[in-house]
Amino acid sequence: MNAPQKLFNLCLAVCVLFGCRQAMATDFEPLPRTAAKPGDTAEKIALGKKLFFDPRLSATGTVSCNGCHNLMEGGDDGRATSMGVSGLTGPRNAPTVWNSVFQASQFWDGRAATLEEQAKGPMVADVEMGMVGHDQVIGRIEKIPGYVEEFGGAFGESEAVTIENAVEAIAAFERTLITPDSPFDRFLAGDQSAINEQAIRGMELFESIGCTECHSGPALNNWTGADDDAEFVEFPRFIDSPLVDHYDLGSDLGRLQVTNHDGDERQFKVPVLRNITLTAPYMHNGKVASLSEACRVMASTQLDEELTDKQVSDLIAFMATLEGDFPEIALPRLPSRVGESVIDPSSVSDN
Amino acid sequence: MNAPQKLFNLCLAVCVLFGCRQAMATDFEPLPRTAAKPGDTAEKIALGKKLFFDPRLSATGTVSCNGCHNLMEGGDDGRATSMGVSGLTGPRNAPTVWNSVFQASQFWDGRAATLEEQAKGPMVADVEMGMVGHDQVIGRIEKIPGYVEEFGGAFGESEAVTIENAVEAIAAFERTLITPDSPFDRFLAGDQSAINEQAIRGMELFESIGCTECHSGPALNNWTGADDDAEFVEFPRFIDSPLVDHYDLGSDLGRLQVTNHDGDERQFKVPVLRNITLTAPYMHNGKVASLSEACRVMASTQLDEELTDKQVSDLIAFMATLEGDFPEIALPRLPSRVGESVIDPSSVSDN
Repeated sequence: MNAPQKLFNLCLAVCVLFGCRQAMATDFEPLPRTAAKPGDTAEKIALGKKLFFDPRLSATGTVSCNGCHNLMEGGDDGRATSMGVSGLTGPRNAPTVWNSVFQASQFWDGRAATLEEQAKGPMVADVEMGMVGHDQVIGRIEKIPGYVEEFGGAFGESEAVTIENAVEAIAAFERTLITPDSPFDRFLAGDQSAINEQAIRGMELFESIGCTECHSGPALNNWTGADDDAEFVEFPRFIDSPLVDHYDLGSDLGRLQVTNHDGDERQFKVPVLRNITLTAPYMHNGKVASLSEACRVMASTQLDEELTDKQVSDLIAFMATLEGDFPEIALPRLPSRVGESVIDPSSVSDN
Repeated sequence: MNAPQKLFNLCLAVCVLFGCRQAMATDFEPLPRTAAKPGDTAEKIALGKKLFFDPRLSATGTVSCNGCHNLMEGGDDGRATSMGVSGLTGPRNAPTVWNSVFQASQFWDGRAATLEEQAKGPMVADVEMGMVGHDQVIGRIEKIPGYVEEFGGAFGESEAVTIENAVEAIAAFERTLITPDSPFDRFLAGDQSAINEQAIRGMELFESIGCTECHSGPALNNWTGADDDAEFVEFPRFIDSPLVDHYDLGSDLGRLQVTNHDGDERQFKVPVLRNITLTAPYMHNGKVASLSEACRVMASTQLDEELTDKQVSDLIAFMATLEGDFPEIALPRLPSRVGESVIDPSSVSDN
């Protein structure tokens, strides 16, 4: 344990002694209820929602954004790595789209600075939505009169169906995907009964062993606000942990593949911990099946700590309090082309 | 043209002369607004809706009922044949689930008598949801506490998670998937302005050339009511039509594969025509890309008629009036297992 941690633990002990069992203000913050950017109009959000749910943006017509970022559950797909068009799979675990706006960058390696930039990627990734290019995406959308009209209405332009407008609409919708009012948020707001004793023990342990070095702030990912610069963290840090080999955690070079800088080897973005109980399996490669094992992995590889079963249970009790209120979403009606599909059979690679 | 058709056309001409341009009461009926069976409780419908949208009922965790029967659009997938788990594809076009209750049997070859029986099939079809058996389906559901609780509540039994209960819930939800109040329904109810002149011409042509021999009743599929016996029709009937070979319409043996009776060769169920404008491509093999070509194919192979471009346009104008009101559906929240996915990586066939 390093000196700041010791000091922190001392402070915590004093706090506990004097009955102020509230989390340290510097570590956690309530999740904001809105994250809209100026220009996120209702029309753009409604259009972006349709695009988010539309599988016709994929080569096979089978994979929508929601396919791997399922809003009906944890905003992910419950798989180690996602399955895109034609059964192809990629190398990394799908992060949740819930609260993804509260990040300074997108993707595990932070290769997209914004939600808009992120949304462009999967459409044309051959193992994800598999379109040959954004022109193919726009070509499909242009064949659907209802979309052409909605793009025109949302963007007030005559030739509004562009990839820039499409991802602006998708991002505007994604900025509404926030899960506030979790038990932990109510606790942070002063309701001491919002989380139970075990969760409080878990929270205190989470702080005392150093999880909050990275997992702090409203989304428990070091993000501090809209103007935050992206920060990355070495993972795994204690590379000699036996769990590194066991779960193949060291082979993904992370941000190095984006920047080509040696110092960025195995640097990753800190993931959001909101609703973490709903997004198994875990880690960038999805090879850790359970949250309890994920706690052990993180303690071992990042903090050189070994947790007891009780500590793991307490940590999970705390993390369960991060499940927020999911907004009710009406299933969108997707506009159609009358009497003809836009999925060109020749663009579909069947097996 | 045969004698009854001539008589019919004469009647129609008289009708038109005297201004009564309403459809013949014997051919069409308004779509019922409800089709609930006794016992379709709100709890079963809510549970069935979750199961319908839940991709965890597939081996890969990627294919839900909604994956191929997308309620956000036409209740189908816009593909010639559907893509199931791991990119596998089947031999037939996905029929719409909208108004599927108004059929005397399910699947193109009518091999399921009920919606309940139908729902069992795709879960364990290797090119669809790919589960190795219904036990695997039930095993997954049993791992999700929220589902166990909801099954118990909906069925009032202690061990309620069974495949019979699962498909009963799914079917109860599907019986709510009705699109009433189409322009054509309003026309049938007496509102002469609900459909335009071209649609009326199309309707009259639809009757006069004999489409209504099969496509009659509320769903335009010969179905007459809940106690209706399943009827099948030879397709293609005029096997010498050049379109038969062109679209490979003769090779699927249809109901023969179900019954093994020679007389059932190329016998198919008559599909629902409600919302037919939204479910391209067409025919049991999905090889006919457009509704206009589908009109030509049906006229040629079933009625030995060749249609003019104007006739095709009129028929499509009529069929467009069959687009009903789609009920608003709230996206369900799917229950989760805390901190662990139910998709076992070993059950997932990646490539």
